[in-house]
Amino acid sequence: MTTLQGRDTAHTVRSYEEELNHLANVVMRMGGQAEAQLASAVQAVLRRDSELATRVVVADARIDEMEQEVHAFTVRLLALRQPMADDLRAIVGALKISADLERIGDYAANVAKRALVLNQLPPVPAVSGLPSMARMVQEIINDILDAYIEKDVEKALQVWRRDEEVDDLHTSLFREVITYMMEDPRNITACTHLMFMAKNIERIGDHATNIAETIHFLVTGKALPLRRPKGKAETDLNPPVVD
Amino acid sequence: MTTLQGRDTAHTVRSYEEELNHLANVVMRMGGQAEAQLASAVQAVLRRDSELATRVVVADARIDEMEQEVHAFTVRLLALRQPMADDLRAIVGALKISADLERIGDYAANVAKRALVLNQLPPVPAVSGLPSMARMVQEIINDILDAYIEKDVEKALQVWRRDEEVDDLHTSLFREVITYMMEDPRNITACTHLMFMAKNIERIGDHATNIAETIHFLVTGKALPLRRPKGKAETDLNPPVVD
Repeated sequence: MTTLQGRDTAHTVRSYEEELNHLANVVMRMGGQAEAQLASAVQAVLRRDSELATRVVVADARIDEMEQEVHAFTVRLLALRQPMADDLRAIVGALKISADLERIGDYAANVAKRALVLNQLPPVPAVSGLPSMARMVQEIINDILDAYIEKDVEKALQVWRRDEEVDDLHTSLFREVITYMMEDPRNITACTHLMFMAKNIERIGDHATNIAETIHFLVTGKALPLRRPKGKAETDLNPPVVD
Repeated sequence: MTTLQGRDTAHTVRSYEEELNHLANVVMRMGGQAEAQLASAVQAVLRRDSELATRVVVADARIDEMEQEVHAFTVRLLALRQPMADDLRAIVGALKISADLERIGDYAANVAKRALVLNQLPPVPAVSGLPSMARMVQEIINDILDAYIEKDVEKALQVWRRDEEVDDLHTSLFREVITYMMEDPRNITACTHLMFMAKNIERIGDHATNIAETIHFLVTGKALPLRRPKGKAETDLNPPVVD
């Protein structure tokens, strides 16, 4: 009787662990997809590659499905395993992180949709400001996924602090784009798309910051008590006024 | 012994119900706050009332706190009550809905921040398009909160379908604003803020749609199988091209 119970417990523990690993793996795969979608969307803008942009738009459905998968799996785990403490936080954390990754995917897809429109308009010079901002956000996504899998709070906090740099880059890009619009009204349509693209990439950075907060909670059991960092200029609220 | 257990169980059941009610109440109160913040933000734009706008920006912290409260309470309930089936879905649903409400609050605060900037610039006529869009989204938020408290899937689905109307209104507002920018470059700065305000309000509508999906899951136990409705013009991706 004891042996049987012992075996049963061991079996249950192992398969529960496997389930938790599976959950983390799906979240990581979602993260990888979101990362790839952002990279491709930015490439589609820079190379004016409408075929690539279309692929990004279509592939977004896969990330949406993965979020549904995480959601369903999470609810099943909560019901069947009735987890406590660390495990409970890992499960609730996965649910929250997958929601952020789904939004990141949406924003990348929106960048790609706007690339399709931009590719039908004459090129504007402002596109040159976008890659450095995108590169920074891509690094941030990469680091936050590392922090998640390594349960590294310090790395998560580094990402959290870097959001300010993204906001500052966004502000200067925004100002540049406004200037192009004022110089030549024919740039306005293309520039509004650039503005929203930059905003999307900035929002992706915000979601990485959310994920950093979730990792902090997941590892330490406590919410981050600090106020979120904000770029000096409270991002894009101070465009140049010209008349 | 049996009596004591009996009493204990009855007590536990009642207090568990009370806890679930408390959770729903906090979510509703968050909803009420988010609704009020949106209404005030729009008023601040229309009346050019910077004092009101400042109040909205400051009050956003309260909604953020309430989300933290829901999060902490949810994790506690999951750990202590080990809920199953309906209760589990109610708890996970509250967690998701509170995240959407927090974002709605953020967008309302961003509208208010932009109102502060707009109030320092000469008025642009385009502001007239904003109230009808805002009114529709306010109705939608009101209806989705009703649907949540009444667990009314049909009402939730009505909200879900109305997102298309918001997207169409947003598209026409967007086109109008672009036209003002082209007519007079001195309008550009104010108009970019209007564009982002309209975008924020459209996003608030998207979050109401998310909440509709969560209510569907919460009541029926199934994810909505349908694709999200989209406005005819895939919202603001087809601005007029003028040269």
